[in-house]
Amino acid sequence: MVDTASRISLETEVDEQLDRAAGGRAASVDVPALARVLAGSWADVRLEAREMTKRPELHKVEGMPYAEHRERVLGQLKLLAKLGSSKRAFPKSVGGLEDHGGNLAAFEELITADPSLAIKGGVQWGLFGAAVLHLGTEPHHRAWLPDAISVKVPGAFAMTEIGHGSDVASIGTTATYDPKRQEFVIHTPFTAATKEFLGNAALHATAAVVFAQLITKGVNHGVHAFYVPVRSADGSFLPGITGYDDGVKGGLNGVDNGRLAFDSVRVPRTNLLNKYGDVAEDGSYSSPIDSPGRRFFTMIGTLVQGRVSLAGSAALAASLGLTIAVTYGNQRRQFTAGSDTDEVVLLDYQRHQRRLITRLAENYANTFAHDELLQKFDDVFSGRSDTDADRQDLETFAAAIKPLATWHALDALQEAREACGGAGFMAENRLTGLRADLDVWVTFEGDNTVLLQLVAKRLLTDYSAKFKNADSGALARYVVGMAADRAYHGTGLRTLAQTIRDFGSTARSVSELRETNVQRELLTDRVETMIADLGQRLRPASKLSKQGAADLFNSVQNELIEAARAHAELLAWEAFTRGVEAMPDAGTRQVLEWLHDVYGLGLIEKHLSWYLINGRLSPQRAQAITAYIDRLLARLRPHAQDLVDAFGFAPEHVRAPIASGIEAERQDEARTYYRELWASGSAPADEKALRAALEKPSDVETAEE
Amino acid sequence: MVDTASRISLETEVDEQLDRAAGGRAASVDVPALARVLAGSWADVRLEAREMTKRPELHKVEGMPYAEHRERVLGQLKLLAKLGSSKRAFPKSVGGLEDHGGNLAAFEELITADPSLAIKGGVQWGLFGAAVLHLGTEPHHRAWLPDAISVKVPGAFAMTEIGHGSDVASIGTTATYDPKRQEFVIHTPFTAATKEFLGNAALHATAAVVFAQLITKGVNHGVHAFYVPVRSADGSFLPGITGYDDGVKGGLNGVDNGRLAFDSVRVPRTNLLNKYGDVAEDGSYSSPIDSPGRRFFTMIGTLVQGRVSLAGSAALAASLGLTIAVTYGNQRRQFTAGSDTDEVVLLDYQRHQRRLITRLAENYANTFAHDELLQKFDDVFSGRSDTDADRQDLETFAAAIKPLATWHALDALQEAREACGGAGFMAENRLTGLRADLDVWVTFEGDNTVLLQLVAKRLLTDYSAKFKNADSGALARYVVGMAADRAYHGTGLRTLAQTIRDFGSTARSVSELRETNVQRELLTDRVETMIADLGQRLRPASKLSKQGAADLFNSVQNELIEAARAHAELLAWEAFTRGVEAMPDAGTRQVLEWLHDVYGLGLIEKHLSWYLINGRLSPQRAQAITAYIDRLLARLRPHAQDLVDAFGFAPEHVRAPIASGIEAERQDEARTYYRELWASGSAPADEKALRAALEKPSDVETAEE
Repeated sequence: MVDTASRISLETEVDEQLDRAAGGRAASVDVPALARVLAGSWADVRLEAREMTKRPELHKVEGMPYAEHRERVLGQLKLLAKLGSSKRAFPKSVGGLEDHGGNLAAFEELITADPSLAIKGGVQWGLFGAAVLHLGTEPHHRAWLPDAISVKVPGAFAMTEIGHGSDVASIGTTATYDPKRQEFVIHTPFTAATKEFLGNAALHATAAVVFAQLITKGVNHGVHAFYVPVRSADGSFLPGITGYDDGVKGGLNGVDNGRLAFDSVRVPRTNLLNKYGDVAEDGSYSSPIDSPGRRFFTMIGTLVQGRVSLAGSAALAASLGLTIAVTYGNQRRQFTAGSDTDEVVLLDYQRHQRRLITRLAENYANTFAHDELLQKFDDVFSGRSDTDADRQDLETFAAAIKPLATWHALDALQEAREACGGAGFMAENRLTGLRADLDVWVTFEGDNTVLLQLVAKRLLTDYSAKFKNADSGALARYVVGMAADRAYHGTGLRTLAQTIRDFGSTARSVSELRETNVQRELLTDRVETMIADLGQRLRPASKLSKQGAADLFNSVQNELIEAARAHAELLAWEAFTRGVEAMPDAGTRQVLEWLHDVYGLGLIEKHLSWYLINGRLSPQRAQAITAYIDRLLARLRPHAQDLVDAFGFAPEHVRAPIASGIEAERQDEARTYYRELWASGSAPADEKALRAALEKPSDVETAEE
Repeated sequence: MVDTASRISLETEVDEQLDRAAGGRAASVDVPALARVLAGSWADVRLEAREMTKRPELHKVEGMPYAEHRERVLGQLKLLAKLGSSKRAFPKSVGGLEDHGGNLAAFEELITADPSLAIKGGVQWGLFGAAVLHLGTEPHHRAWLPDAISVKVPGAFAMTEIGHGSDVASIGTTATYDPKRQEFVIHTPFTAATKEFLGNAALHATAAVVFAQLITKGVNHGVHAFYVPVRSADGSFLPGITGYDDGVKGGLNGVDNGRLAFDSVRVPRTNLLNKYGDVAEDGSYSSPIDSPGRRFFTMIGTLVQGRVSLAGSAALAASLGLTIAVTYGNQRRQFTAGSDTDEVVLLDYQRHQRRLITRLAENYANTFAHDELLQKFDDVFSGRSDTDADRQDLETFAAAIKPLATWHALDALQEAREACGGAGFMAENRLTGLRADLDVWVTFEGDNTVLLQLVAKRLLTDYSAKFKNADSGALARYVVGMAADRAYHGTGLRTLAQTIRDFGSTARSVSELRETNVQRELLTDRVETMIADLGQRLRPASKLSKQGAADLFNSVQNELIEAARAHAELLAWEAFTRGVEAMPDAGTRQVLEWLHDVYGLGLIEKHLSWYLINGRLSPQRAQAITAYIDRLLARLRPHAQDLVDAFGFAPEHVRAPIASGIEAERQDEARTYYRELWASGSAPADEKALRAALEKPSDVETAEE
């Protein structure tokens, strides 16, 4: 708490600083220029796809019964194939373009048409087709890719089992080689090994890529993928195959998810997708990768693109939701505050700015971060830089950004829906449907919580590598030093220095937090300190029993996940920073700098107690951050519409009546009515007196039903 | 950060303290005893209703097309009337029981059957019927209540307008008195004045209570309510009335929401619900309340029960969601950690405990808080203690608890859904449907953000009353003193004292935070300090122009809302405290004390930066709180199932396959398979070796589709 006087002076000072920083530069957004930047590294392909998604026949129809919705989406899938948008990622040998980055960019755009279409397409081409492409070899490509691309053969990706969602290595389905008949026997040995949640499985799939434990000559060589026909053309299951329709879901009801079980189903030996492991006619097993562990992760790694595109489509869905809420918030009026007659536009309320503009900043960060992820993905999959290290970096990057972007999408869509009140709850305004469809983004293709543990483990590995050659004493001294720093100085040495400086001007000291390097140091420092702490605490694990190590690991699981999240936020902040620096137009860059600071300072505000406990910020400095963010939000408010317009959605993408301008029309009609009423003098007496008698906005209650 | 050694000693010490505090008391939950307590003050009525909600014909059918769903719910509504559950709140004169508290308790139970039924019933009896009851007089009751109770006349509650959701006082609909014909002319003067989001309006309502500006003799006397027939028995609109079907919504699709507009529709003078304002034959207006403002808020105040029951049904929905997720988390296994073969139960993971048990603590707090709110409501509506002050207290209490409980429900249901992974996304497992239906709880019957501003305003009023007789100098000195406290001592005087003590034992100093009075002081102190700060900053408002005052108010809107939320959390914490103290069984009380501390310490952890900045906690103490909560969670984990079983839901209420035990059955079947496989020696060689070769859990990736 600061007393009134000093707070007012703080606010004034903050404003002066922001003006100085602006150095007379007028802040104004060059919308087309910014739109080009936000369209990213594959702007042409993306915008071409965005043109396509204007087609009404690709749009979701809210309230359509799910049986009908499923057929509609299958039809849309075939249309996409006809339009040629399904071949982009596939090899030239089968008529593809081998454009991996562009393929995902184009694909993500389907989210504005119908997320079910994006996911059904993802199953058909990003999982089923991609498995044949990346796990199979030339003959497999020739045999199966053309029909996968054309959707002549709708396919399922049969990896997940009822008993094993995230833990793929432990799946129970077996593929036992029979040398006599040179066939693999695909079998579901118990109920929990039934394949579950598979898109296309309930109705449309006539084939499936099935993941199973490969057993030959009585030896289990681990999880491999097999191409297995499951239905005849007439839609009936082939012998030995049974299924189950998952029915209605929380969203994505245009996708027919279901289960598949196998009762000793035989497929030719050559149906093994044999790029990373093969079985000869005599049943002898061979693989280019000796370690079963590395082999497994190499195979799974080829499927990283799902995570990359989920991060992208999530960022896009959040952009759409914020476009709707900000546009409405700029037209919708509620309560007369300053005047007796004219009501306030929602976005002029401080709380409304807090709710939407902070999320807009997050959304920009995720958008820039996803573009860097997409570039990394394309570098690897194009083969330009495809070492083991590159692949590991890509997987860690995706494992960090996918949770960040997908959780943000749910949060932003929900806040947008609440910010639009009852209108936000109407399906025609898109927000509830988008949120329901995207809900599963946070748990499929890698449960966010599991992914963040992957990231944390990678950070711990890098950390211990740093100290590999140092004796443990050095490490201990290093960490103890960090602790001592606080033990003897309450909130830490650096703070003492700060405290003295802060007696000068809190605002001035805070303004340093707007310097890119200071923000970077604070965000990086937090990740490194958390990891160093965890590294220390996990050191004893090596000397413990397997159970003991597991218990120790579990006792810090929470902090591991938080450290990984801090790392992901740092990556997004860095990407945003580069995005701002690359902006050529000065006026636009000024606005982006403010938005970037709202994101950076917002991260520090979110983790403020950590910075205080660990002596990175003085209380004086910490308490001024919130006020600083509020001032930045006030400066950004006039540019909010430009910042969402720069996402570049056309009315055919937005399709929300409340963001179409009818709200403004209605308001004008009402205002005209009152003006004429009062002008004509026929207004009921007391009309104004009455309104005056009614107390301030916060008094007024509501009952919507 | 604490170094490893001191952290381990901290954890040990915390455990020792918890043991000492337990004083040898065995912690064990007497489930039936706890269930009785959680059923609350109207346990009998509630449990009777809960028996009724077992009926399959009252249950929601997921995926049912909305047209069909609407008719099903109308039928259910009539069944409830037939079963006699619709008359409980109404006067004995019309066959009612005048049991207001019991009525809401029974009503909230409908949430487990179908939230659409709860809301459609709320519209029919809690709004339409209640308006006739509370705003009308004896003749109105005789004329209209019986058909409202029996649903012979389905009714709409026409308050909200397209242009005015939360700001009811500014609605545009007019009711102009025509003395010649002794009729009111109900009119919608412009599009934005169209009544919107009205339950029953799209299809079923044959009458509506319409809120309009009452104008007689050219004078506007403000918003009043009128009984207006809108449809003939055959369902066609009466002359002058037009409507619009809102169609599909984000949830609650069993309710037919729609719009109503009036083109000079005439109703008899006596259709004015005239308890708080009447018009004589000659058109002269009279009211028992002179101030138009007070009159308005008195009328609106009679509708507070909607908020009370939304808080209750939200708490109940969260209880159901947590029951499903905790039960599944106790059966579902994922990843082998400590052993090569046996997988870990989800709820044994620290993160899973964090995700679910902390929310269970919040849910208990909200459940106890709602029961106190319900008692307060019954005290007022039964007339036992029904002064103006009582009504204001009730409204503030409801305005604080409704946002807390409804936001918590969305958060808990979402976390439960994510904690169940893909299975949580299947509609049959209830979580997504409950969340979608409850989504609108946070914005209707009082937008949560608007309600919290009401609370804040009340707190500010009380605060300034405290200083009314003090000269502003005294106030200034008081606040400056608080500020100085920090300005000269970094994190404040109290902390310096703490810091010294904390050099002894962090854990011991933290253990004080488990003392009820210490938690109370910290939570209360935060509310009071925030309000005192805001009171100071808003003082200049009185000297400013209306616009200036509005701008000043807006510049602190964010903090006002946070202060109100802090107040609501304190109220919930107090209710939880009383709930624990009232628990007779010692073993159960021990478990509840831990859960209560998880809630209390959780609130302090959530606002930790405030406590640090304002010198209420030393960094040493602050950094130990999280570790302390983790230890409490570990102690609560074995009792988690008992704590959800105590909600007392039967399988007919839960209805989620994943919480039915089939998961455990599947796991057993799988384990048996592997045991036999290995026993028989026919297991593929390398099966174990392979599993061992696979790295730790956090390595394993996933692809669910």
